Amino acid sequence: MAITVVGSVAFDTVETPAGRRERCLAGAATYFSLAASYFTDVRVIAVVGEDFGAEQQAVFDAHKIDTRGIERAPGKSFFWQGSYLENINEAKTLQTDLNVFAGFEPKIPDAYRDSQFLFLANIDPVLQRRVREATPNAKLVAGDTMNYWIKDHKPALLEVLKGLDIINDTEARMLAGKENLVQAARAVMDMGPRMLVVKHGEYGATLFHKSIPKGHKSESFRAPAMPLEQVVDPTGAGDSFAGGFFGYLASQKELTPGVFRRAMFYGSVMGSFACERFGTERLQELTREAIDERFHFFRELTHLD
Amino acid sequence: MAITVVGSVAFDTVETPAGRRERCLAGAATYFSLAASYFTDVRVIAVVGEDFGAEQQAVFDAHKIDTRGIERAPGKSFFWQGSYLENINEAKTLQTDLNVFAGFEPKIPDAYRDSQFLFLANIDPVLQRRVREATPNAKLVAGDTMNYWIKDHKPALLEVLKGLDIINDTEARMLAGKENLVQAARAVMDMGPRMLVVKHGEYGATLFHKSIPKGHKSESFRAPAMPLEQVVDPTGAGDSFAGGFFGYLASQKELTPGVFRRAMFYGSVMGSFACERFGTERLQELTREAIDERFHFFRELTHLD
Repeated sequence: MAITVVGSVAFDTVETPAGRRERCLAGAATYFSLAASYFTDVRVIAVVGEDFGAEQQAVFDAHKIDTRGIERAPGKSFFWQGSYLENINEAKTLQTDLNVFAGFEPKIPDAYRDSQFLFLANIDPVLQRRVREATPNAKLVAGDTMNYWIKDHKPALLEVLKGLDIINDTEARMLAGKENLVQAARAVMDMGPRMLVVKHGEYGATLFHKSIPKGHKSESFRAPAMPLEQVVDPTGAGDSFAGGFFGYLASQKELTPGVFRRAMFYGSVMGSFACERFGTERLQELTREAIDERFHFFRELTHLD
Repeated sequence: MAITVVGSVAFDTVETPAGRRERCLAGAATYFSLAASYFTDVRVIAVVGEDFGAEQQAVFDAHKIDTRGIERAPGKSFFWQGSYLENINEAKTLQTDLNVFAGFEPKIPDAYRDSQFLFLANIDPVLQRRVREATPNAKLVAGDTMNYWIKDHKPALLEVLKGLDIINDTEARMLAGKENLVQAARAVMDMGPRMLVVKHGEYGATLFHKSIPKGHKSESFRAPAMPLEQVVDPTGAGDSFAGGFFGYLASQKELTPGVFRRAMFYGSVMGSFACERFGTERLQELTREAIDERFHFFRELTHLD
């Protein structure tokens, strides 16, 4: 089944202990689309400027990503510059130029209207909500958020949460105002979504269900992260996780609890690949075989036998 | 097989968001022994004062823990007072009275000499080394350390590391002086031990092998922690982990890679129980059935099927 994703397509300049890259093709929707494209068809809603040329378009085309929803606007694409020199786990933002993104009005092509899977990447919750309301037939809707929206745009975010099945939220504790993760998870799910994915960086991620799945003992499932000897660039790891997670879900006929577990593993797999090179470089050149090989590595990393 | 453990037997006064307890029976060797006692015979080397009476002795006796190596000295037992009111994950030490522990000279009863499993709990590395040297026939030797010894007693600690098979070290990064966990693990194992267990608090723990076990792809294995809705008292969780981990190992005929994996799960299980009540209260009243039930819960928490 096809996924529609709305989010940013951008250029990033990053510096990390591994080096520096100028104007990588990046943005949450780009990471998400590339990661999900190894599992299913992906359709993007975004806006780019005149600096988005044939080279960038070719990256989407090579992964058969539908870009009819990427609007071309006069001016420059969203640009972000960040540094991980002080802390590899936390970006220090050096510059953010919204550029054409400042006036972004998501437009959903008619050809996207039959998408049953919708992903609202990390953008202004007002825009997330608008896209959600314009796609009432979506079967499974997931969204992402971050500390910035929790702190300064909470009322709009709370409205979005009501319309989500799954929320990806590394800052679930902040959103819930609770220190204990289990309590925070329950509080976030009381805001709307029936599932919550919390990423723990190098320690993996946890999936919480609002109610314990039939035949199971636990409301949660924990997936590992890859023990990486070197993180080249952690930018987009969360968006790539979301792409692997949601992409795998959309590729499955039935959404059983077991499918959600495997989706968590595929999310973690795609997040780990994203960190191995700058920007979306690694995600551009993967194969499904390499992805499945890492999936099996993750299984060995966590399974008793 | 019997385990000999050397470490502290103490009284703790703790305050946490869940309440306050005065003078709980505690200390690293107590947590370790109780946790390990559900798997195998345990023999303790420690020193206590006159405040260690029939009530405390009865706790060890009820778990058939050999206390012939617990020396009774004039004065008071080791006392620690800490608070978790500010941060449930990190104790703030309010008072430490070494008391009889200040002059502790570990004495190994002859009856302990055939122990093939030796655990050096978190005490002065000079004492750890002395016990290690006095037990040359031990088949598997594990030890624990912490930031205090790494910072201020590093030369003595490095000597201990040479004589260990397994080191438990939450602060592996600090010991190695490396931020990346995989790199830090390799550096720590280059100091002597062929295995390293790093605990990640609520995110579980990782076992690193110096070389990839035969038939496996990964040098590491990741065990989860219990998603606890309330941590009553985290004191001793690491020692209880060590007791479960090492106790299970000592109970097995052969130390295969699969046994080490299951030992990590049992470690995590015992650590989770320890947090559920104050001091060693929860560890005192467990059953092997309750332990195995949680083991299966942990399997479901992490396994794909």
